[in-house]
Amino acid sequence: MSIQQTPNWLMQRAYLTPDRVALQKDNQQLTFQQLHENVSIITKKLHCLGIKKDARVAILAPNSIQMVELLHACKYIGVITVLLNTRLTTHELVWQIEDADVEAVFADGNYFDLLGDSSANVIPLEVLNETQPKEDGLCIQTEFELGKPDTIMYTSGTTGSPKGVIHTYGNHYYSAVGSALNLGLHHHDVWLACVPFFHVSGLSILMKSVIYGMKVIIHEGFDPKVINHSIQTENVTMISLVSTMLQQVLTDLKESNQTYPEALRCVLLGGGPAPKSLLERSKELGIPVYQTYGMTETASQIVTLSPEYSLTKLGSAGKPLFHSQVKIMNEGKMQESLQPGEIVVKGPTVTSGYYKREEATLASIQDGWLSTGDIGYLDEDGFLFVLDRRKDLIISGGENIYPAEIESVLLSHLSIQEAGVIGKDDDRWGQVPVAFVVATGITESEVKKYCLERLAKYKVPAEVRFVTELPRNATNKLQRHKLQEYLR
Amino acid sequence: MSIQQTPNWLMQRAYLTPDRVALQKDNQQLTFQQLHENVSIITKKLHCLGIKKDARVAILAPNSIQMVELLHACKYIGVITVLLNTRLTTHELVWQIEDADVEAVFADGNYFDLLGDSSANVIPLEVLNETQPKEDGLCIQTEFELGKPDTIMYTSGTTGSPKGVIHTYGNHYYSAVGSALNLGLHHHDVWLACVPFFHVSGLSILMKSVIYGMKVIIHEGFDPKVINHSIQTENVTMISLVSTMLQQVLTDLKESNQTYPEALRCVLLGGGPAPKSLLERSKELGIPVYQTYGMTETASQIVTLSPEYSLTKLGSAGKPLFHSQVKIMNEGKMQESLQPGEIVVKGPTVTSGYYKREEATLASIQDGWLSTGDIGYLDEDGFLFVLDRRKDLIISGGENIYPAEIESVLLSHLSIQEAGVIGKDDDRWGQVPVAFVVATGITESEVKKYCLERLAKYKVPAEVRFVTELPRNATNKLQRHKLQEYLR
Repeated sequence: MSIQQTPNWLMQRAYLTPDRVALQKDNQQLTFQQLHENVSIITKKLHCLGIKKDARVAILAPNSIQMVELLHACKYIGVITVLLNTRLTTHELVWQIEDADVEAVFADGNYFDLLGDSSANVIPLEVLNETQPKEDGLCIQTEFELGKPDTIMYTSGTTGSPKGVIHTYGNHYYSAVGSALNLGLHHHDVWLACVPFFHVSGLSILMKSVIYGMKVIIHEGFDPKVINHSIQTENVTMISLVSTMLQQVLTDLKESNQTYPEALRCVLLGGGPAPKSLLERSKELGIPVYQTYGMTETASQIVTLSPEYSLTKLGSAGKPLFHSQVKIMNEGKMQESLQPGEIVVKGPTVTSGYYKREEATLASIQDGWLSTGDIGYLDEDGFLFVLDRRKDLIISGGENIYPAEIESVLLSHLSIQEAGVIGKDDDRWGQVPVAFVVATGITESEVKKYCLERLAKYKVPAEVRFVTELPRNATNKLQRHKLQEYLR
Repeated sequence: MSIQQTPNWLMQRAYLTPDRVALQKDNQQLTFQQLHENVSIITKKLHCLGIKKDARVAILAPNSIQMVELLHACKYIGVITVLLNTRLTTHELVWQIEDADVEAVFADGNYFDLLGDSSANVIPLEVLNETQPKEDGLCIQTEFELGKPDTIMYTSGTTGSPKGVIHTYGNHYYSAVGSALNLGLHHHDVWLACVPFFHVSGLSILMKSVIYGMKVIIHEGFDPKVINHSIQTENVTMISLVSTMLQQVLTDLKESNQTYPEALRCVLLGGGPAPKSLLERSKELGIPVYQTYGMTETASQIVTLSPEYSLTKLGSAGKPLFHSQVKIMNEGKMQESLQPGEIVVKGPTVTSGYYKREEATLASIQDGWLSTGDIGYLDEDGFLFVLDRRKDLIISGGENIYPAEIESVLLSHLSIQEAGVIGKDDDRWGQVPVAFVVATGITESEVKKYCLERLAKYKVPAEVRFVTELPRNATNKLQRHKLQEYLR
């Protein structure tokens, strides 16, 4: 028999391992039983607010226990949760809220103002707290249908307009199982979560927590000193980081003349390729770094490199997780090893599609194979090397930035005739966006200010360069790779 | 997306972890890469013999590397493997071979004679060795469809005639994953297999090996001294045993004044309830015993008790694996906690059904819920207590014995008019079968000899008692529970 349902994950955990710690934040700890009880109450409050199965509800909040409880409560009801990036502007948020047909947005107090004037149905988390629980007529999902949508996260693409990536229960489930088959699973594992839950790298930690019965230590923000203290004193065995974070914790570690306890058995490193020097420093310090390759569309890592290969296969993203497959395609043909081409992946963590974007879904996924848009090759041993992330993708501090999205904002300014955006190497962030514009009567700071009103801060060009024309090919298509030459 | 396929397990392992040891027996070791290469050759030999996808092929052999290779080769082709119990008689074997529409039986040399005179197409393993590999036209399953049948194992029932339990790829896959989510998964895990691979307790170890990438140490037979030596010198972390085996290894351990290394982190105990004294001795010796409840129909364990509860919840079988659910039913109604009733289970390891027994399948499985026929209850904390195994089931040294099967052999003798079989407690085997017969002109030893020609040795009644009548109810149905009073 193939699997179609599993028991509701948190409910099953509250039954199987009620007394294990599920979540910890600052001085607060919740067991799976306590978490289930809190979630049950929130479920009744959502019911009182009229939130029904299959509705789309958005969450705009930083990492917190309350956010996790709300996430689980949505699963209890069968609501599809849209996870909003707290770094976005009002304009970007409203766009996603409308696109996802969201019925209600639960917003943390600090982010409420961002949406205060919008037409969205915004409910501050404080209001949810004060809502009376209602039980009458409430129907709880005691089982999860693995094929059904669970969450939606937006990611931009080459077109510039973000698309809602649908994650089914199955996507999250197999991501957790595939990771366990690769990294192993110990009874005393504790995962430190300092990456945001509105990204799949963070959300996947929460799914692992209930599927494994594992404690998660939640950090709201990223402070290298605080993270290092947590690792050193709280029996952390696993942590998810992006390169810039790893760099910062290692620097702090060196400055404070400390090392990590042996209990730390996995640093799961995502968000783009890691610099060689960083991997070498990690190796010297005996830190077990697992490099990963993945994207929102694959519900986090789909290819991982074990620490034993981190230097011998330097630059490689590793091999696929147990359920997944990778092939390299070029003009409809599978490439031999060492021959580059588009990276195409398959497996049960691949998204079922983009919300309301049938055409884009069909263009990306065929027969279960997802065309990533990234370029790479497999070596003789089957290790994946990523040569180029999705055409023109800029990865800055673990956040994906799509040039087309910034260009479309730039072009909306009346004084800008043409615009091209590329990534520039940056010691701290990996990359930062740089804009080339053909414009008259506007200064660099005016351009930046205009962007800042419309784009998340990390997307605002670090530099704006004024040029007389942009490199284009015969069909007038912008040749961004030529802008790299302008940069040099 | 729900999962429908996985990559071929062994092929994926040979790709992901080629150099890890997959199998060890005596002085021979095979890595996953070597195992894959051997299996590929056997696949070509099977192809040469005309064995095709979806055919049913039987294996009659004790635990060996060659048997494991053949098992994987069958999966490569998509053959459904029927696993035959080497302890059965010719009569029993031929019945199963015919019932399963087996095209070819691969028999170990020592067991070939059992089938030598039958009409079955029996191929000695030596002949397979000498067969020339053929590649032309061979089609390998590079992916497994989880819903498709993989293996068949026979189990008797209350009717007395054995039924072929179909295990899909998915049954085996989720059994391995469910076990890992419960027991954890360490990179250095080594599983000792001394239970036969023709039982699901043994077969499931092999499935775990390729799904986890884990080393399995194969023992052909069970010798407590040899097993203890293996545990003490070969870094064994996990072992599957039945109670009588555990009793014997503990006795040997005591006699030789030794203990087990700390590396041994799990003794998975199946095959019926364990005596309290055995659990207490294990606890004293610091041996982590996980008691399990399961059956062929659930592809091995479905409920497990962790060592920390082995004495506080003494007598309990534990809680279900993560994907599985247990409920207690009585006259169509779900029972409250502490109320006994039939144990009914659900989950992705539940068989898709009995081979060619649609009616029996429908009678046992409804909406995914399998009626086990066992009686039990759940306590206030949700721990399962099994009161009575499947009506009248006798468990002897981990082997299931169904009274109806023995009774039907007894009744086939012209001198026996009536027969009833029940289990009697036995220090060594847990239980042994005892027969009550109404007969004339036949002695106890003649009855035993008659049975020995038709039944596996472990099924032959240890005692035959002659009575003038058997206890029957108003509808003339044999009341086996009343025979227990005769015994006392």
